[in-house]
Amino acid sequence: MAGQDTLLLVLDLAGIFVFAITGALVAVRRQFDMFGVLVLAGATGLGGGFLRDVLIDATPPAALADWRYLIAPVVAGLATFLFHPAFGRLERVIIVLDAAGLGLFCVTGTLKAINYGLGPVPAALMGMVTGIGGGMVRDLLAGRVPVVFSSELYATPALLGATWAVLANYWELPVGWVALPGVAICFGMRLLALRRDWHAPLPRGSASV
Amino acid sequence: MAGQDTLLLVLDLAGIFVFAITGALVAVRRQFDMFGVLVLAGATGLGGGFLRDVLIDATPPAALADWRYLIAPVVAGLATFLFHPAFGRLERVIIVLDAAGLGLFCVTGTLKAINYGLGPVPAALMGMVTGIGGGMVRDLLAGRVPVVFSSELYATPALLGATWAVLANYWELPVGWVALPGVAICFGMRLLALRRDWHAPLPRGSASV
Amino acid sequence: MAGQDTLLLVLDLAGIFVFAITGALVAVRRQFDMFGVLVLAGATGLGGGFLRDVLIDATPPAALADWRYLIAPVVAGLATFLFHPAFGRLERVIIVLDAAGLGLFCVTGTLKAINYGLGPVPAALMGMVTGIGGGMVRDLLAGRVPVVFSSELYATPALLGATWAVLANYWELPVGWVALPGVAICFGMRLLALRRDWHAPLPRGSASV
Repeated sequence: MAGQDTLLLVLDLAGIFVFAITGALVAVRRQFDMFGVLVLAGATGLGGGFLRDVLIDATPPAALADWRYLIAPVVAGLATFLFHPAFGRLERVIIVLDAAGLGLFCVTGTLKAINYGLGPVPAALMGMVTGIGGGMVRDLLAGRVPVVFSSELYATPALLGATWAVLANYWELPVGWVALPGVAICFGMRLLALRRDWHAPLPRGSASV
Repeated sequence: MAGQDTLLLVLDLAGIFVFAITGALVAVRRQFDMFGVLVLAGATGLGGGFLRDVLIDATPPAALADWRYLIAPVVAGLATFLFHPAFGRLERVIIVLDAAGLGLFCVTGTLKAINYGLGPVPAALMGMVTGIGGGMVRDLLAGRVPVVFSSELYATPALLGATWAVLANYWELPVGWVALPGVAICFGMRLLALRRDWHAPLPRGSASV
Repeated sequence: MAGQDTLLLVLDLAGIFVFAITGALVAVRRQFDMFGVLVLAGATGLGGGFLRDVLIDATPPAALADWRYLIAPVVAGLATFLFHPAFGRLERVIIVLDAAGLGLFCVTGTLKAINYGLGPVPAALMGMVTGIGGGMVRDLLAGRVPVVFSSELYATPALLGATWAVLANYWELPVGWVALPGVAICFGMRLLALRRDWHAPLPRGSASV
């Protein structure tokens, strides 16, 4: 159905755009040159989807077949490169956008994995990977340990949003009811985790180090 | 033959489990939170096989189609998270398990590559990659240079075990004779390298630095 | 046409060889053992092509089906391991060879992507990825931020060479006219960037940090 495809495409492009901004900001702070900013924007925006597409054998990835997927990170990277002082002041906005990107990707990634025949548990995992993969690629390329390993709850909201998408798809709900509550669950829980400083449990003995 | 498949599955799951424990231990020592421990356990246990499956086009990887492959690293990660002080005292046991995982993966990886039509030399390389890949992913995500580059002989035993598997398969030996001596060659040589402190040659001039 | 295939194969092998030398030299300077030198030589020489082949679904990569692709980095790695003091004195030669490798890969990568059905913009991007990917893998494995992010112009020449290959292919020029000017554009611009110390623009405010 065209409505479903359009909704998922718009959600996907929005996620790519906001993730690309977070990658470009890391690059700017590391003093990368303009090319480095664009590459890190692209890797952050598209990395999670590339990882998913390669694993579920949906190659070549959509981003290589549809120019809109390539334009999004280029625009985000150039805008960040030019206007980063303003973006830097907007750090709270960026964090909110990043949470929105996480919500968008965990749902679109899950639905794509289901379309390629994966079972419910692997599909939810692929949704989570789509959400957190771009940020992990960004951090590896920037030479830092991925923040997802130690920041406020990040992967758990993505896994919950993906789980909703799997369940709602299994119940054959309309696409709006599959996508939007999934995005909202992930987005809302991520914002709550930031506000309340929720963390995943640490190993015993860590506090003393 | 069911017997062959069952033997390879059991060897594969055992390898995933012990590698996942080594990944989880690195994560615990780096103070990653529970999610980080699980992700590093999964990446270490499944990373080598994912790399192999993507390269030989066996996608989606078995781990995304068979829930037993996903349960193994989750159990290993949670057990390590909860009981790591005990595991830490068992470091010698872990190193032995890691050597066993290396032996298991170099053989199962080689046989899978042969099944997907690769020639003998690339198949043995894929076996080695399956064995050492998980640990390399683990070290990259944990922000350290892969230990395989400078520790006691690690890749050489894997390559020898893989070579045995290629030869025995070419000679059409029964599966037990393909798999078990290959595992034993790699496992035994790795333990000998640890005990005797065998290293690969260093570049000239290194000692003076 | 046999002539085209032969030309592209020779260009590809030459690129793998010189990139493998740059990887091996980084490994030698990091005191990696002989195995580490060989792995980093292989990852640098073959990494860009593997990345391209996985993304355009040309798996298994040519390097796993054709032993000549595997021999090239092994010979380059061993030669560097044995004779690195001489190679080290030849640093200027190496930089020139690396520029040649970049030129070779950006063209062969683009043409392969076109052969697999990608459109012009994604094909040029894949050419650039083939050129810069091996060096990025090398730097990640060696634990340093990829030099492509902050050195003299590196990706831009690759993108220009790839753009030539796309245009010349679209105009249906003979293969020599597709390949050789593309290599020359990238190679020449990279050497000029080195000699004139050309850099991509830096973000505003960077100089003050």
